[in-house]
Amino acid sequence: MTPEATLAKFRDYMVGPARFANLLSCFELGLIDALRDKPGASAVELGDAVGAKPDHVEQLLHLPVKEGFLAYDAATGGYSLDALADLPKEDLDRALVFMDLVKVTMLRQLYYLSESVKAGTVVGLKEFYGYDGNLFGAVAEHKDLRESWATAMDAGTARVDPWFFDNVDVPAGARVLDLAGNTGLGAINTYRLKASPGLTVTTFDLPEKEQEALENFRANGVAEHCSFIGGDVFQEVPPGFDIVLIRHFLTLWDRSEVLRILHNVNKSLDVGGQVSVLVPVYQDNVREHDSRSVDFYPAFFLGCAMGQGGPQKLSTWSGWLEECGFEMTQVVVEDPAAIPADALPLQAVLTARKIA
Amino acid sequence: MTPEATLAKFRDYMVGPARFANLLSCFELGLIDALRDKPGASAVELGDAVGAKPDHVEQLLHLPVKEGFLAYDAATGGYSLDALADLPKEDLDRALVFMDLVKVTMLRQLYYLSESVKAGTVVGLKEFYGYDGNLFGAVAEHKDLRESWATAMDAGTARVDPWFFDNVDVPAGARVLDLAGNTGLGAINTYRLKASPGLTVTTFDLPEKEQEALENFRANGVAEHCSFIGGDVFQEVPPGFDIVLIRHFLTLWDRSEVLRILHNVNKSLDVGGQVSVLVPVYQDNVREHDSRSVDFYPAFFLGCAMGQGGPQKLSTWSGWLEECGFEMTQVVVEDPAAIPADALPLQAVLTARKIA
Repeated sequence: MTPEATLAKFRDYMVGPARFANLLSCFELGLIDALRDKPGASAVELGDAVGAKPDHVEQLLHLPVKEGFLAYDAATGGYSLDALADLPKEDLDRALVFMDLVKVTMLRQLYYLSESVKAGTVVGLKEFYGYDGNLFGAVAEHKDLRESWATAMDAGTARVDPWFFDNVDVPAGARVLDLAGNTGLGAINTYRLKASPGLTVTTFDLPEKEQEALENFRANGVAEHCSFIGGDVFQEVPPGFDIVLIRHFLTLWDRSEVLRILHNVNKSLDVGGQVSVLVPVYQDNVREHDSRSVDFYPAFFLGCAMGQGGPQKLSTWSGWLEECGFEMTQVVVEDPAAIPADALPLQAVLTARKIA
Repeated sequence: MTPEATLAKFRDYMVGPARFANLLSCFELGLIDALRDKPGASAVELGDAVGAKPDHVEQLLHLPVKEGFLAYDAATGGYSLDALADLPKEDLDRALVFMDLVKVTMLRQLYYLSESVKAGTVVGLKEFYGYDGNLFGAVAEHKDLRESWATAMDAGTARVDPWFFDNVDVPAGARVLDLAGNTGLGAINTYRLKASPGLTVTTFDLPEKEQEALENFRANGVAEHCSFIGGDVFQEVPPGFDIVLIRHFLTLWDRSEVLRILHNVNKSLDVGGQVSVLVPVYQDNVREHDSRSVDFYPAFFLGCAMGQGGPQKLSTWSGWLEECGFEMTQVVVEDPAAIPADALPLQAVLTARKIA
């Protein structure tokens, strides 16, 4: 790569925050909706519609015009939708949900990324919210974080969970443990999507989740098939299960904690027992594949969510499973061409079997 | 543009803040310097060197490896400089100065971009610094803003000012007014770069700048040729000059203020008198030219610097000059190929003459 090409890449990085905020503001201020209502509106009309000065509307709309999202007619001074006119609402809404997540949980917090890496905690949450702990604790106390995060997580889970269950084999009548299963929604999904005579699914999480999990089981009519065990995955995983599912969880931890979890899972299983892990991954050769998650996750996990953790390369996840007494039986990675073009994660399901 | 292409562009926008922070942190934490000292260092060695956990070093280095800035050797687990090895230090330093400006003056403040646009003030400065006013006032009170901003401005000015004077004709013995000339450095540069028998340069700015300007003239040995007039450009521009220079100033204002300034300049000049303006510009057709400044300036001026202002299209600047009684005599725009690939502004010099 020539120095010029390197510097041009740096420039692309430099404008990242400005471009992000400029585009999002066009939606937040209602400029795009105003153009749907009145195609060809001028900056003056748009300013009236959204309560901003026409000068400032013009400034903000240069970028979406440049990108081809909007069109500008120099003869009339009117703006209209261009590429945005062809974008299905469902797709746009999904992208905007994610942009809001970036704004609320990341934009400010990233100012402290270096400090967060040094401290191993999310310094940005302390600085902006006075909160000691990680994002998943902070969302319980701060409505803005909770609303932005929960909306994005629900959207992400709705896409990924069906794909996960499509790629996990759960034999009829199996006894399934949903590790770190929170308040039981994963168990309910597992039972519904993998129903078979005798199938049982048990949520394993901290004891304080039990009450809500049991209520969820009853409300969903699966109380006969789903149960809850309280405990701490870093201490012990309960025995007596054929399959352990670990979804949306290992990525929260650094190597030593992941190994401890997997070791405890291994100890809980009989030989031949199965573990299936859902994790976002980096491709082993980040330069040769679609490595979109590399653009996002390190900064998100280290600086905004946990102060640790993050996806790993496929070979790393597999190696860690093997280090803990498993042999790999199946690895499935999301096909970049099969997920929406705006979606960041490339998820993988790694399935392994306990060896003697 | 297909919906897929639009969504892929959205994705590129979404990762902007994360990519920016991840790359900058690699430098801030000293990872890149550590690799200069010890090529082939492992994540463990780098973590020791910079005081971060090896897990977190690995996370942060995925992105520069993906981009080709660094190389990773899977066989040894060692990292080394790749494209960064070929980048002259001067170029890298300039890029890092600008990245620091983005971090300190923009990253957090952009969270409030929409609010800033509605209010017409920099809400982010109020929220994060308790400061009512614009960035140029805030830098006087806040050391972190001042250091980041002044370093970047000095670097930018050092590149742009010689180019400006190369493209402005100052006849021998002219009486030059440097409008909004702050504490006289522009006048000193003008005198030195355009020296001729009888040339005089007068700094025009708020009266409180006079003391420091006069000291600067004396210290630079130009007190015989440079002088200071205190006043308010929105009230009146002093008469008696052949050429008025306006650099780094018009971009701070919205249309009505720019017209008022240009009107006052016109009133101060005799017919045939010259005004030369240095401003960053947007190309008239933002889709067909190098429009890099569109990526940055709207968000910077509206959300971080002024709560107003910003570059304009070339035709807009020219039109405003004509509206105020000038005819254009020369327009020069920076050649994108002639400025560093990481540099954002595309500056223009517009020269016009007062018509009868």
